[in-house]
Amino acid sequence: MPNPTAAMIVIGDEILSGRTRDANMHYLAGQLTEMGVDLKEVRVVSDSAADISEAVQALSRRYDHVFTSGGIGPTHDDITADCVAAAFDRPIDVRDDAKALLAAHYEKTGRELNAARLRMARIPEGAVLIDNPVSIAPGFTIENVHVMAGVPSVFKAMVASVLPQITGGAPLLSDTQRIDRGEGDIAGPLAALAEKFNDLSIGSYPFQDNGVYGANIVVRGTDRARINAVMAELKDIFA
Amino acid sequence: MPNPTAAMIVIGDEILSGRTRDANMHYLAGQLTEMGVDLKEVRVVSDSAADISEAVQALSRRYDHVFTSGGIGPTHDDITADCVAAAFDRPIDVRDDAKALLAAHYEKTGRELNAARLRMARIPEGAVLIDNPVSIAPGFTIENVHVMAGVPSVFKAMVASVLPQITGGAPLLSDTQRIDRGEGDIAGPLAALAEKFNDLSIGSYPFQDNGVYGANIVVRGTDRARINAVMAELKDIFA
Repeated sequence: MPNPTAAMIVIGDEILSGRTRDANMHYLAGQLTEMGVDLKEVRVVSDSAADISEAVQALSRRYDHVFTSGGIGPTHDDITADCVAAAFDRPIDVRDDAKALLAAHYEKTGRELNAARLRMARIPEGAVLIDNPVSIAPGFTIENVHVMAGVPSVFKAMVASVLPQITGGAPLLSDTQRIDRGEGDIAGPLAALAEKFNDLSIGSYPFQDNGVYGANIVVRGTDRARINAVMAELKDIFA
Repeated sequence: MPNPTAAMIVIGDEILSGRTRDANMHYLAGQLTEMGVDLKEVRVVSDSAADISEAVQALSRRYDHVFTSGGIGPTHDDITADCVAAAFDRPIDVRDDAKALLAAHYEKTGRELNAARLRMARIPEGAVLIDNPVSIAPGFTIENVHVMAGVPSVFKAMVASVLPQITGGAPLLSDTQRIDRGEGDIAGPLAALAEKFNDLSIGSYPFQDNGVYGANIVVRGTDRARINAVMAELKDIFA
């Protein structure tokens, strides 16, 4: 059975303006690979309602899971929850269980559950809350879309809450061989190897290291013995 | 006149598997912001011909410029040039001027211009070469799509070659105010400010710093005086 597939939507002008370097994509990619869910596509979109809704619609149709990052806080530029609700044509409003979580949290910390904070209890109808042990305001899952915060520490905590609910596949295993020769010198034998082991993915990632040309050959697959067989051949060919 | 718009396509399984953390998106985003080109969307797609061609078609129709990163080397997994040619329904073959660049380079460095390296001279019909002072093998521009290498040093060199050919807009200016209070406490006044200065983009980016909740308020626009006016009001309100 093929592995489940996934896509990610990173929401935020701060990434597209170059102000912030995204960290959540790299984190989620590693987590999904470990559990055998194939991340097939990531889209970074701006804080625009139409763009967010369109990406949610397109990707939720195409992949088994969609993970979003960003735009669920209390400020005016946090529009993700409303956009996801709109994408599925669902009403959205403050929900009692989410409000209760926030009320208990702010009472304990002596802060006011004001109108802005109450926005974080707006949940589309039919969604399931995603636990947030870091800052309490929950994410949510609706259909196959998992809506999470952008702050990396909160994103990680929500990923830890939601991934155990998801059925994984065969974890993607990999091994890497560094070859200190130009890609052009190794491309021929490498292509032959990729054809012979066509059940595996064999990628060549070139680098330049103080004027030395080389490539990391990364072999990926779900069968350790097959990967070992490629690695042995690689060593024979490029020794 | 509104600024020109752009999208980026990052090609590579190594990003989606979490093996590599992308660096080119962050770099290009900063460069485009400086010259007044609005980066509106980034897609990270796998080494799949259909996915690459579809992303090129969709984004080249929608935005003024599309920049791609990755998949133009000599190995079997380098399929970007062919996918871009297919997206525009153009023939692709080894081109004399690109071949001459490679021949001169490899003669000088005493390496062979073999069949694999010659693949890097495959250029879609009607494209304009993008200069690569780092490792010579050129990128290319076809229609509004700029096809560049994934190795960060080469990507940067190609960006430096291609951006001067592009007409920019009003550079996006920004200023940031750090406020050491929870977003929920500042959201109300901030929304009022965003409404008052609706020609600017006012974003709130929350953080947690050793248990302290705070937010960086980033004000973006093309008019320095207007940005300064917001910053002054921010200081008044949240002093």
